[in-house]
Amino acid sequence: MTAPARIVVALGGNAILAKGARGSADEQRATVRRACDGLAALVAAGHELVVTHGNGPQVGRMLIQQRAAQLEVPSMPLDVLDAQTQGQIGYLLQQQLGNALRERGAQRPVVALVTQVVVDPDDPAFASPDNPLGPHFTETELEFRVQRGDGDSSGGPSAAAWVVDGDAYRKVDGGTWRRVVPSPRPLDVVEGDAVARLLEAGVVPVCAGGGGCPVARHDDGTLAGVEAVVDKDRTAALLTRLVSADTLLILTDVEQVALGYGTDAERPLRSATPAEVRRLLADGEFPAGSMGPKVAAAAEVAEHGGRAVITSLDRAADALAGRAGTTIAAG
Amino acid sequence: MTAPARIVVALGGNAILAKGARGSADEQRATVRRACDGLAALVAAGHELVVTHGNGPQVGRMLIQQRAAQLEVPSMPLDVLDAQTQGQIGYLLQQQLGNALRERGAQRPVVALVTQVVVDPDDPAFASPDNPLGPHFTETELEFRVQRGDGDSSGGPSAAAWVVDGDAYRKVDGGTWRRVVPSPRPLDVVEGDAVARLLEAGVVPVCAGGGGCPVARHDDGTLAGVEAVVDKDRTAALLTRLVSADTLLILTDVEQVALGYGTDAERPLRSATPAEVRRLLADGEFPAGSMGPKVAAAAEVAEHGGRAVITSLDRAADALAGRAGTTIAAG
Repeated sequence: MTAPARIVVALGGNAILAKGARGSADEQRATVRRACDGLAALVAAGHELVVTHGNGPQVGRMLIQQRAAQLEVPSMPLDVLDAQTQGQIGYLLQQQLGNALRERGAQRPVVALVTQVVVDPDDPAFASPDNPLGPHFTETELEFRVQRGDGDSSGGPSAAAWVVDGDAYRKVDGGTWRRVVPSPRPLDVVEGDAVARLLEAGVVPVCAGGGGCPVARHDDGTLAGVEAVVDKDRTAALLTRLVSADTLLILTDVEQVALGYGTDAERPLRSATPAEVRRLLADGEFPAGSMGPKVAAAAEVAEHGGRAVITSLDRAADALAGRAGTTIAAG
Repeated sequence: MTAPARIVVALGGNAILAKGARGSADEQRATVRRACDGLAALVAAGHELVVTHGNGPQVGRMLIQQRAAQLEVPSMPLDVLDAQTQGQIGYLLQQQLGNALRERGAQRPVVALVTQVVVDPDDPAFASPDNPLGPHFTETELEFRVQRGDGDSSGGPSAAAWVVDGDAYRKVDGGTWRRVVPSPRPLDVVEGDAVARLLEAGVVPVCAGGGGCPVARHDDGTLAGVEAVVDKDRTAALLTRLVSADTLLILTDVEQVALGYGTDAERPLRSATPAEVRRLLADGEFPAGSMGPKVAAAAEVAEHGGRAVITSLDRAADALAGRAGTTIAAG
């Protein structure tokens, strides 16, 4: 039995929309329900949870819908789209986690709240957008838009980067192109206090979906949305500190972090200090698009005295007890 | 000076998306900002607010986007779409009301939360859907869908009602057709307690957008979404009771309710008892699609001992002081 802890859970996208699924509401609801059964077990074991989640597949689908109807309906910027996915996914999680808790006799209010995350408009990420988002385009499709005169364009298919209509595109594996957007560092979670208050009131908050709606904070303290996405695990790491949680639990597709991933020498990383993890990150041990951000978020939590656990939903309880997964904590 | 009150505000759709506007994010943000300046004045005057809002134009635009991309992206049902608009509009209100409060030196946390509203699956509304939603279709467009064999169809252009692909359509003024959906009575707001707790903690909650995500409550207490929309003013009236608010403030396009609307004998209704209002409703004094639901929601609040005020945003402060608008309260 693990001592009860306050845990920020970061649910991967596949916990909401399984890989390869079309993504109907029924499919998403069933997938979310499975994740919520796992989360409910943690609540029933006495843990206090804050639930955060990704939104990549959902925001990608909304971008496709926006483009398809762009002549009739004005497209929304990324901060507003993130809010839409917070509503959509938050609703599903709120409903299914509430149901799962009730069926376990561990009834508790679950509330999804819209979360804004403060970023620095001078963050270097704005100068070099690198977060792929939304649908894949063929070279022909992008060329057609350039020929049609969709605003400015620079770069082109011979280069690996192309700006069309003000948006940056990059060639990805397989030769298709995807839009890339800036992913600045989260500096503050505007609703952090409200999340802490809900926790104190016995509520399970669902928040910071998709990393939160990115906003800039002006000198007078007012907020304005910015065109970016924030890494959900980084925001979850920040939130772990802001709500004084003991643990960041990053739930993903694999049971633990691997060293030498995909090589003959692949072996599990069961535990590490933040310093060891920073060294591995600097050595390029973890791919930027997948395990890298998770490990970096885990290191940040550990550097601030917390504990981070990376594992799969099925192994969450064992991992919290140190019997599975990868634990990052000060030595 | 009015005594400080706990007020549930129901913002009309035009407070978020002005009539005739295309609805870009910038337009919506500017319109929301004007509404929030008015709301911030009420907070600065000492009132405790719960903010609810409509979502008709926004959900209509999402339905257009869903249809345009329906071959690529699965369409979401109405409960999920409502949640998406709660995220979208909740974010804009949360940000702009926070800004407006800060600029007035009345800084307070503002939190938008996803709200579920319980309805009865046996509500008579499900047998006779009458709430128009989404885009207008021409007869030709619906006929094309029938000929293409989009599922079942019954009725037809000679009748005033038509079922195409499982959805009911009705002929509206001007000869176009619109989908009509059931609008059952709200029975409970699942997150009502959480809203009350946030109020006690000094937070301004934004909730019950678009009337809330409609859900059925099974015998075991678990919840499941249903295909319907709930009238936002009726949900706001219910919420007024659930959070023990003094006042329901319905903000709309006109300064007050009129009797004999559009006739030579048109005159303002400055105050009425719920019994008087019920009589006027029974006499068909108020049109079903516009003032009727607002007046009915107001009567419900007054019947439970509260006060309801119907007015425009500009006159809100005066109306709360009894110097403008229409006040419905027990005699």
